[in-house]
Amino acid sequence: MISIAIFGFGAVGQGVAEVLLRKRKQLESLIGKYKVVAVTDSKGSVVDENGVELSKAIEKKKKGGFDGEKTLGVIESLDFDVAIEVTPTDVNSGEPGLTHILKSIEKGADVITSNKGPLVVAFKKIKKLAEKKGVKLGYEATVGGVMPIIKLAKADLAGNDIKVIKGVLNGTCNYILTRMEKEKMTYSQVLSEAQELKIAEADPSYDVEGIDSAAKLVILANAVMDMDAIFDDVEVVGITRITPEAFEVAANKNYTIRLIAEANKEKGFLKVSPRLLPRNHPLAIEGTMNAALIKTDLAGDIVVMGKGAGKYETASAIISDLVEFYRKR
Amino acid sequence: MISIAIFGFGAVGQGVAEVLLRKRKQLESLIGKYKVVAVTDSKGSVVDENGVELSKAIEKKKKGGFDGEKTLGVIESLDFDVAIEVTPTDVNSGEPGLTHILKSIEKGADVITSNKGPLVVAFKKIKKLAEKKGVKLGYEATVGGVMPIIKLAKADLAGNDIKVIKGVLNGTCNYILTRMEKEKMTYSQVLSEAQELKIAEADPSYDVEGIDSAAKLVILANAVMDMDAIFDDVEVVGITRITPEAFEVAANKNYTIRLIAEANKEKGFLKVSPRLLPRNHPLAIEGTMNAALIKTDLAGDIVVMGKGAGKYETASAIISDLVEFYRKR
Repeated sequence: MISIAIFGFGAVGQGVAEVLLRKRKQLESLIGKYKVVAVTDSKGSVVDENGVELSKAIEKKKKGGFDGEKTLGVIESLDFDVAIEVTPTDVNSGEPGLTHILKSIEKGADVITSNKGPLVVAFKKIKKLAEKKGVKLGYEATVGGVMPIIKLAKADLAGNDIKVIKGVLNGTCNYILTRMEKEKMTYSQVLSEAQELKIAEADPSYDVEGIDSAAKLVILANAVMDMDAIFDDVEVVGITRITPEAFEVAANKNYTIRLIAEANKEKGFLKVSPRLLPRNHPLAIEGTMNAALIKTDLAGDIVVMGKGAGKYETASAIISDLVEFYRKR
Repeated sequence: MISIAIFGFGAVGQGVAEVLLRKRKQLESLIGKYKVVAVTDSKGSVVDENGVELSKAIEKKKKGGFDGEKTLGVIESLDFDVAIEVTPTDVNSGEPGLTHILKSIEKGADVITSNKGPLVVAFKKIKKLAEKKGVKLGYEATVGGVMPIIKLAKADLAGNDIKVIKGVLNGTCNYILTRMEKEKMTYSQVLSEAQELKIAEADPSYDVEGIDSAAKLVILANAVMDMDAIFDDVEVVGITRITPEAFEVAANKNYTIRLIAEANKEKGFLKVSPRLLPRNHPLAIEGTMNAALIKTDLAGDIVVMGKGAGKYETASAIISDLVEFYRKR
C-alpha cells in the first residue's frame, strides 16, 4: 500500500486528489493499492493514517480550508511513502515548498512536485540529498505543464546529447502574443482581456516579464542538460514592449513573434526573449499552448507540444511521475 | 556486463553498432559495461563471447557480408542478455524477425526491435511469451523512427486514457505530398524524384499504398491503446490517386492534404487515408518528418514530431530502449 501525502490544496492539489479518486481502478492496476494519508493547505490539514476521504477533504477546502496541524507538523509526525508538493511557487526563496521537500526527503520519502521555486533555488541540494537518502524525485509538472518534456528528454531520448532546447514555456505570454497578432490589439488591451479571462494574474509581471519562462529554463538546463545553472544566469526580456507595429513588420515577411526560452549548451547561454519565427515554425504555436524543440546528436530535432497549464493537465504530469516511481513489473 | 546480440546488419544494425562504439563512455555511465557478442546478417555472423570488434565487423560487412553461423544457429548456441532484432520487415509473415524474437525470448533474453513485421503479425503472442518468460520487450523504433511516441504514450502520459492517435507516420508519403503541394507537380513526377533521392523505394507500394502507415497504426493500437488490432482491421487508402488539382482546391481554402493514420478507440476504428488539414494544423508538417497527435482524458492533446527514419535516428530509438531496460539506479 502506497501512502501519499499532498502538500498544497489549490487547483493542482485538488486536481491530483480528484484523479486519485476517480481513476483509482486504472491507477491501481499500474501501481498497486494506494491511500492518501494527508492533505494540507497553508492553514492546516486533514490527516488519516487509514486514508483520508478525498471527496470530504475537497468539500471542506471549498468551505474555507483546513484546520488541524500545519504541513511541517504533519511531515514530522506522519509516515508516508511519497510527498506530492504542490504549494504556490516563489522563485526567490523557494518556500514553503523547499522546506517541505527537504524535510520529506530527510524522512526517506519520495517527492513529486509541480513547484518550480524549490528547484530553481536549490536543484543541486535537493538532488544530492535525494541521492544520499536513496529516494526518488519527480518534477515533470514543473515545466510545460502537461507537455512531457522532462521524461521525453531524459528517458525517451536517453543516450542522446541534448544540445539545445528552445521553447514556448509560458501560456499566458503566448496567449497575449497570439491575440496581439490576430486582432492587431495593443499589449495592454490584450492584457486586460487576459486578466478578465483569468489567463493572466492581477499582477502579471511573473509571466509577462519572462520570470516564469526563465525559471522553467533553469530547471530544464539543470535536469536534462547538466548545465549547473542558476536563475541569474538567464538573460531575460519579457513581452511588455512589443507593439502591434512589430507584428505588422513581421507579418509582411511571413514571420510572427513569440517569447522563446533557449538553453544552449553548445554556446553556453540561457536566454528568454521575444524572437521572430517563420509562421510555419513548430514553435509558432497559438493560444495558451506550450511547445519545445529539442536538438540532439542522434535523434536530430524533436518537437513536443501540449497544454502549458490547467488543473487536470498538471495533475496528469504528477500522476505520470507517480506511475514511474511505483509501476508494477 | 550486458551481452548484446545484433540480428540484422543493414543501415539500422550498423547505426546501432556505431553508436555503441562511439558513445560507449556516455552509455556505460547510464547502463554499465556492455559488449556485443554477435552480429548477424542474412548470410552469416561474427561471434565473439568476449566482445566482437565492431569496427572490424562493419568493415567486413562493407566488403560483402558475413560468413559463419546463421542467426538461428547463433541464437541456439550463444548466451546473450538482449537481442537487437533489426532485420528487414515483412508485414505478411513477420519473418525472419518473428522467429528470431520468439527464440530469443524462449531463451530468456530481452528483445529490442525496429522490425514492424513480427509485432503486426503476432503482437499478443510475443507479449504473452515475454511476460511468461519475465523478459523485457522494447519496440520504440518500430513506429515513427525517432519520434518517441510509444514511450511518450505509455510512460510520459501514464495514468491517462489514450482515446485517439492521429499521425503522419510515413516520411516517404509526406515528402511526396509536400513536394506535390509546393511545386504543383504530379504524383508520378514527384515519385520519380523521390526514388532518385532514395526517399522512395524502387517498388514504392509498401509506402505509397499506406501499408507501412497501417502497420505502425496496428502496433500503436495494440501497444498503447489496448485495442487488440490486426492488420486487416485497418481501412487503408494510399496517396497514389491524389492530383495537383486536389491540392489547388485545398489551398484555396487554406488547407493541405496529408496521409493520416488514425486509431480511434472511442469510435472503434483504424484508418489510413489522405485527409484535408488546415495549413496551420500540427500534423500539416513538411518533408520526411513524422508527427502524431495524442488525445487523452487528463492531459488533453499532446503533439510530438521527429524524423521518421534514418540510420542514427532509428538507432537512437533502439538505444533509448536499451537504457530503459538497464538503467542503473
